[in-house]
Amino acid sequence: MEPGPPGDSGPAEPGPCVSGLGDTDPAASASWLSRAGAETRRGWPTVAAVLPAGGSGERMGVPTPKQFCPILERPLISYTLQALERVPWIKDIVVSVTGENMGTMNDIIQRYQHKHISLVEAGVTRHRSIFNGLKALADQSNAKLSKPEVVIIHDAVRPFVEEDVLLKVVTAAKEHGAAGAIRPLVSTVISPSANGCLDCSLDRDRYRASEMPQAFLFDVIYGAYQQCSEYDLEYGTECLQLALKYGHTKARLVEGSADLWKVTYKRDLYAAESIIKERTSKQIYIVMDRKDREEHIGVLLEEMLKNEVNNVKFTSGALCHVGRDLQPILSKQCYNFVCVNVMTSDFQETQELLNILKESNLSMLYPVVVISQI
Amino acid sequence: MEPGPPGDSGPAEPGPCVSGLGDTDPAASASWLSRAGAETRRGWPTVAAVLPAGGSGERMGVPTPKQFCPILERPLISYTLQALERVPWIKDIVVSVTGENMGTMNDIIQRYQHKHISLVEAGVTRHRSIFNGLKALADQSNAKLSKPEVVIIHDAVRPFVEEDVLLKVVTAAKEHGAAGAIRPLVSTVISPSANGCLDCSLDRDRYRASEMPQAFLFDVIYGAYQQCSEYDLEYGTECLQLALKYGHTKARLVEGSADLWKVTYKRDLYAAESIIKERTSKQIYIVMDRKDREEHIGVLLEEMLKNEVNNVKFTSGALCHVGRDLQPILSKQCYNFVCVNVMTSDFQETQELLNILKESNLSMLYPVVVISQI
Repeated sequence: MEPGPPGDSGPAEPGPCVSGLGDTDPAASASWLSRAGAETRRGWPTVAAVLPAGGSGERMGVPTPKQFCPILERPLISYTLQALERVPWIKDIVVSVTGENMGTMNDIIQRYQHKHISLVEAGVTRHRSIFNGLKALADQSNAKLSKPEVVIIHDAVRPFVEEDVLLKVVTAAKEHGAAGAIRPLVSTVISPSANGCLDCSLDRDRYRASEMPQAFLFDVIYGAYQQCSEYDLEYGTECLQLALKYGHTKARLVEGSADLWKVTYKRDLYAAESIIKERTSKQIYIVMDRKDREEHIGVLLEEMLKNEVNNVKFTSGALCHVGRDLQPILSKQCYNFVCVNVMTSDFQETQELLNILKESNLSMLYPVVVISQI
Repeated sequence: MEPGPPGDSGPAEPGPCVSGLGDTDPAASASWLSRAGAETRRGWPTVAAVLPAGGSGERMGVPTPKQFCPILERPLISYTLQALERVPWIKDIVVSVTGENMGTMNDIIQRYQHKHISLVEAGVTRHRSIFNGLKALADQSNAKLSKPEVVIIHDAVRPFVEEDVLLKVVTAAKEHGAAGAIRPLVSTVISPSANGCLDCSLDRDRYRASEMPQAFLFDVIYGAYQQCSEYDLEYGTECLQLALKYGHTKARLVEGSADLWKVTYKRDLYAAESIIKERTSKQIYIVMDRKDREEHIGVLLEEMLKNEVNNVKFTSGALCHVGRDLQPILSKQCYNFVCVNVMTSDFQETQELLNILKESNLSMLYPVVVISQI
C-alpha cells in the first residue's frame, strides 16, 4: 500500500502493530514519505537500517538467543522488524545473523511476511556485525541493495521503536553526521578501583545512557568502521564513539522515550509480553457478513468500541472471502476478532471463517466473539 | 518462630515468600542468626534496615507512587518488607513515608501482618528520607528502636532482594565500613556537551551500576549524613559517595544478581508481576483432613510435587481448624491450595475451609483444588 500525501497521518500499513497510543508528535511525522521516492521530496535522504542480531543472549539465562525468544509465540525480532517496516521511508533493512540462525531468520521472514529485509552473516562481535551490514549496503555488485544517504542502526531486541524517534535521529544525522537516542540514568554509575572498592561515583545528572536507534550519514559511519582498529571491532560497543574518533563527528543526542529499553534479561521478556498484550488487546477487527452497513449491530459496535480501544477495523462481505482477505492481517498475529453474523443463511460461512482463524494457528489474546442476529 | 541452630538452612518464616529458586550459597547463609540474640553469636553485628519510600514515582507515569502500586492486588512495598522480614538477623526495619501516605502504610502493615517495622516521616529527597530513618535509629529516647552496629539501606521498590546479598553487604560493611551491590552496565554511558552533542563515551567495562542493598557501619553513615551539606541532601543520590566524602570510607563493592533491579517504569511493574506469578505458582499448600499420613494421597502428592515445585507445605487435621491456623499464611497472599478430603464425613469441613479461603478475599493464582477420596 502506497502511503498517502502529507496530512494523512495514518500509518502506512494498518496491521496490528504494537505501536504506542498516539503520543507521537504529528508535526514530526513523515509517514507520507514513500519508500520508493522519498529522496525526491523536500530533500529527504534515502534511508536504510542495519540490525545486528548475532548475539547469544547469554545474560538472559536461556539457551535461545534473546532476539529469537517468543513473545506470544512470535519471535521478538519479528516485532522489531514490524516496527521498522511500518516506517515508509526506510528503504532497506539489513539484519546480521549468525550462520546457524540464518534458517530460523528466513523462516521468520516468510512466516510473518516481512518485507525489505536482507540478511548478512553476523560477525563475532556487535561492531563486526554492524560493519558486515554496512558493507552489504555499500556493495555495488548487490543489485538488491543500494547505498543510502543515512543509515539507522538499531537493536533487534528493542521492539517498541516509534517512527517519531527514528525521524528525529535521521533528521539530526543528516544535519550533524551522527545522532543517537539517550535516556536518563536509572542507577548511579560508579568506578571501581582495582581492589573492588569504590573509586568514585559519577554525578548522575551529567551523564546519560546511550540507547538505540542511532543514525549516521552513511559515509561517516562506514568510513569510521573502515578505519577503526581490530581492538575497536573486538571490544568496542558504541557506534557514536567510532563516528567521533574516526569520523571526527560529534553526534547529536536525542531524548528517547522509556519504551526504547533493550530486552536484556528474562524480566524484560516478561515486560515486553505484557506491553504487547496490553496494546494488542486494544486492537479489534470486526467482520460482518452483510455489505449494507447502515444501523447494523456491527456498525454500532464499531462506533462504540472506537471510544474504548485504539484500533478498530471493520470489514464486511461474504465471510469466507473476508477470511481469505484477512491473511496479511493474520500473519501479524494477536488480533482480536468479533464476527457479526446478520444473515442466518450464512452460518456455514461463519463456520468457515472460524476454521480459517483456527487453522492459522495464531496466538490470539481472546477467543473469537461471534454475534448472531437471528 | 525462632530460627534453628547453624545447619538449619530453611528460612525463618515459612510463608509464601517470593524468594529465588535456591541459588543462594548455603555456606554464606546466616539464617540461623536469631533476631533477638544475633550480636552474641560469632561476633555478628546488630543490624537494622532503612527503606526510603517517600518517592512520588513520577517516572512510572501513574498517579500512585510506585512503592504502593499493586502487584496481584498487594502493594509492591509489602513484597520488599516481606523479603527483609524473612532475614532473622535484621532486627528493625525503618520505613520513611510521606505524611500523606502514613495511613496507607499503616494499613499495609496491618493487612499483611508485617513485623519489626517502624515508620518515620520521609524528607523531600531520598537522602533526607534516609537521614530521618537513621535519626530514628540513633534516638535514645525511642524505646522501640536501638542503634544498630550495621545499617542496611535498601529501596522499597526492589522486592527481590535475597538474604545472600544482604549477608554479603553486611559482612563487607562490618569489615570495610561501607559496602554496596553493583551490576554491569546495560547501556553505554555517555557525557553530553552543553549543546546536546556527544562529548565522550565511557568504557563500559570500567564502570558499574550502583544498586541496592548497601550497608554501613552505623556510625560511618550517620556521621556522614550529619556532616554533609544541604546541597548533598538536596541533589545527591549515592550513599556510598557520602561515606567516601565525609566518612573517608571506601565502600566495598559486591556483585549483585540481576534480580536486584529497581522498579522504575511501568514495564518494571509488569516484569515484577510476572516474576511473582512464576514464583508463587511453584508454591503449594496441601491440606489433608486426616492426621494419619501414611500412604495417603496427600502424602504421595506432596512427595511427587516436591520434585516439580520449589515449596510444598503440608498440614493435616480437622479442616476447619486447619483453616483457622492458615490465617498467617493467607495474609501473605497468592498461595495455591490443594485440599485432600479423605474422610467423607468431613465434607462439611471441606466446605468450611473453602469458605474461609473465599472470604479471605485473596488473589490466589489458581482455584483451590479439592481431591475427595470417597
